[in-house]
Amino acid sequence: MTGPSVPAKDDFTVTPYEVKGRIDYARLRELFGTEDLTPALLDRLKAAAGRPLPPSLERGIYYSHRDLGRILDAHAGGRPFFLYSGRGPSGPVHTSHLLAFELSKWFQESFGAEMWIQITDDEKVWAKGDLSRAESYRWGLDNLADLLAVGFAPEKTHVFFDTRSIGAMYPLAVDVARKIPYSTVKAVFGFPPSTNVGLVFYTALQSVPCFYPSWVAGRDIPCLIPCGIDQDPHFRVTRDLAERLGFPKPALLHSQMTPGLLGPDRVMSTTGDQRDNALFLSDPPKEVERKLKKAFTGGRATVEEQRRLGATPEICSVWALWRSRYAPEAPEFDTITGDCRSGKLLCGDCKSMLIERVNGSFAAHAERKAKAREWAESRIVEALPDGFDPHAVVPSRGGETPPSPSPVG
Amino acid sequence: MTGPSVPAKDDFTVTPYEVKGRIDYARLRELFGTEDLTPALLDRLKAAAGRPLPPSLERGIYYSHRDLGRILDAHAGGRPFFLYSGRGPSGPVHTSHLLAFELSKWFQESFGAEMWIQITDDEKVWAKGDLSRAESYRWGLDNLADLLAVGFAPEKTHVFFDTRSIGAMYPLAVDVARKIPYSTVKAVFGFPPSTNVGLVFYTALQSVPCFYPSWVAGRDIPCLIPCGIDQDPHFRVTRDLAERLGFPKPALLHSQMTPGLLGPDRVMSTTGDQRDNALFLSDPPKEVERKLKKAFTGGRATVEEQRRLGATPEICSVWALWRSRYAPEAPEFDTITGDCRSGKLLCGDCKSMLIERVNGSFAAHAERKAKAREWAESRIVEALPDGFDPHAVVPSRGGETPPSPSPVG
Repeated sequence: MTGPSVPAKDDFTVTPYEVKGRIDYARLRELFGTEDLTPALLDRLKAAAGRPLPPSLERGIYYSHRDLGRILDAHAGGRPFFLYSGRGPSGPVHTSHLLAFELSKWFQESFGAEMWIQITDDEKVWAKGDLSRAESYRWGLDNLADLLAVGFAPEKTHVFFDTRSIGAMYPLAVDVARKIPYSTVKAVFGFPPSTNVGLVFYTALQSVPCFYPSWVAGRDIPCLIPCGIDQDPHFRVTRDLAERLGFPKPALLHSQMTPGLLGPDRVMSTTGDQRDNALFLSDPPKEVERKLKKAFTGGRATVEEQRRLGATPEICSVWALWRSRYAPEAPEFDTITGDCRSGKLLCGDCKSMLIERVNGSFAAHAERKAKAREWAESRIVEALPDGFDPHAVVPSRGGETPPSPSPVG
Repeated sequence: MTGPSVPAKDDFTVTPYEVKGRIDYARLRELFGTEDLTPALLDRLKAAAGRPLPPSLERGIYYSHRDLGRILDAHAGGRPFFLYSGRGPSGPVHTSHLLAFELSKWFQESFGAEMWIQITDDEKVWAKGDLSRAESYRWGLDNLADLLAVGFAPEKTHVFFDTRSIGAMYPLAVDVARKIPYSTVKAVFGFPPSTNVGLVFYTALQSVPCFYPSWVAGRDIPCLIPCGIDQDPHFRVTRDLAERLGFPKPALLHSQMTPGLLGPDRVMSTTGDQRDNALFLSDPPKEVERKLKKAFTGGRATVEEQRRLGATPEICSVWALWRSRYAPEAPEFDTITGDCRSGKLLCGDCKSMLIERVNGSFAAHAERKAKAREWAESRIVEALPDGFDPHAVVPSRGGETPPSPSPVG
C-alpha cells in the first residue's frame, strides 16, 4: 500500500526527491514495509548464481528487498528475468551512482539477464529549477557512457533515454498513467501544489521499463530493480498497479544511501555546493587527492589517541569507499577494517592508499567509458519492435466499437 | 490570468471536461475574460480575406476571441500564421465537431495558412474511464479521416496524433510542463484529487501545437485556434506561459456550443445515452430521419396555434442546424427563419427539408472521407524535421556545463 514516505516523528526524510537527516535504516525498512535481506535468502542467491556474492551484497550495503524470492523462483523454473536501473542526469556520475549498475552487471553475468537502463532527462528538468533540457540531455549522454562502462554486455543491454525513447514508451505510459491518481503521488512523494505537472506525471514513465519487456514479448518477464531505498516510493506505486495492468510486480533490491565525504549526515549529491561531498568519476587525480585528504573519517583527535583507542570505521566516509568498491577482496577489506579499529592504520595512511586505488580505478574507467561511447547510441530504444502493434484491440469495456480502418464508410 | 472556470453563483458549468446547464454566453465571455467578436473586427477579417465570411462567423456562432487582431496585423505585415484545432477521439464525429474545421478550412483557403490537427487519443483515455487505448486509437484514425474530408489542402495540413507523434512533440512538452504548476490545472479545470496523473499532465501536450511551428522554424509564427469556448481554459494556460517560453501567445476564436437535438439545455455529445442528441456523420439515412423527426423544436402545441403565432427559431435544434451548416446561402437561410417565425413553415415540413439536406451532405462527406483515408497517414508527424536538433544547447542558468559528447574523457 502507498502512504506517506516517512511520518513526522522520525527526524529524517527519504523520498526520491529529498533525502535528509541521519537515516535509521532499520526503521526506514519498517516504514516503507519492505522485507529484510536475510542470510538465508542471500545464500539462495549465491547458490543460484554459482559464484560468490559481490561486496555490496556480502557487506550489507544492499539490506532490504521486495520479492527477490520470486525472481529466484522464476530462475529456478527456467524462466528469464530482467534488470532495470536508471539515472537522472543533472551532473557528473559519482561513485555511489555505480552501486546499482555494478550489482546489475553481476546479475547479468551470473544469470544472463537483459539489462534495461533508463536515462530520465525529462524528470531532471522537471525536478530541478535551474537545469535546462539541453543540459540534462547532454549530461544524459555523458552519464550513459559512464554506466555502460561498468561492463554490460552490449547485446543484452537496452537504454530508454526518455526524450528520445518516448515514442516507444508512451503508449504503455498512457495505460499506466490512467491508473495513478494525483492523490497517490501527492501522498507518496509529498509534492506541494506548486509541483509542475511534468513531475506529477513522471512516475508513470518510471514504471514503464518494469512492464515494457513483458508488453512487447506478450508474456510475463519479471523485473528486478537494484536501487537506493530512496527510489522505493516510485516502485511502490508501480507495484500497486502492476496486477491491474496484467503485468508481474517488479522485485526490488534496496541499498543504503552512500555517506558523503563530508560526514555521515549527508549523502553524496551532485549539486554545486556539495561538490566536495562526492567523488566524481571525471575528477582528475589532484582533485581526488584534495577531496579525500579533507574527507570525514572515524579517526581520533590525535595520533597518540588513535594508536591507543583505534578508530571507528562505521562512521568513516573513507571506509565506506573501501567497503563498497575499492577493496573487493575480503582479506584486504578485513585487514583494513581490523587495522583501523585496532589503531594500527592511521587515517592519513589509509587515505593515501585509497587515493592511489581510486585514481587507478578512475583511469581504467575513463578508458572503458571512451569505448562505451562508441556503442551507446546503438542501444538507445527509439521505436517499438518491428511488427509489434501497440494499438492491438483489447476487449472493449462498453461503448461503441470503433469502425474498421478500411475505407468502407 | 487563470482562475476558476465559473464561479458557483452561475447555474452552468463550462470546462473542457464538463459542460452543463443553460449557458449564458455573454456572461461566460465575461467570466473567461475574452474579447467580443465585433462587427468592425469581422469587417476587417472579411476585407483581409477578400471574400464573404462563412455562416459560422456571419451568424454569430463564433462570438468571442482572443487576439484575432494580432493575427490580422501579422497578415497585413506579410507574415504567415497557422491554424490549429483538435479532436479527442472517443466515438464518431458529429456535425458540431466540424464547425472549427470548416472555419479552419475557410482560413486556409483565404490566407494560404498551414493547418495543424491534433488527435488526442491519450487525453481521451485519461478523461474517460471506460475507453481503452486501442478504442481511442481506432476512433482517432476514423475521426481524422472525417476531419480531413472537410477539404483541407494535403500539402498544407499536418497531424499530431498524440500516441504516434509524441516523439516529435515530447521535448517541447517537457519545456511546457515545467512551467505549469499542479495548482494551476487544479484551479483552471477543477480537477478533484482522484484525477489521474495523465490528465493532470495533458494540458502541456495540448499547448505543444501552438508553439511547435515556431520552435522548428526558429522564428515566431502566430497560431490561430478556432474552438468551442469550453476549450478556452486549456489555452489560457498556454497563453500564460507562452512568453516565458519565448513564443507568441496563440489567438483564439470561440464558438458557442451547438445545442443538442433533444433540447437547448444539452450540448451535442458522443456518449452512449446521448446518442439521439447528435447527428453523427456516419448515421445512415433512416437514422438521420428518426433523430430529426424526434428533435426538439421551437414550435407550438398545435398546427393552428403555430400558423397563428409562428415558432421560435432561437430555441430550435433544427434551426440551429440550418444556421450552422445546412443553409449556407443567406437568402435561403433568411427565408427559412422568416417563414418559421411567421408560422408559414411548419416543423414537420422544415424537418423533411433538413433530412433531405443532411442525407445529401452525409453521402458527399462519405465519399470525401474515403478519399481522405488514402492520404491521412502521410500527414501524421512522427518525427522532428530532418536536421532539427531538439537538444540544441540553450544558455546555461548556473550549474556545471555538461561535457562535450566527444570521447575525450
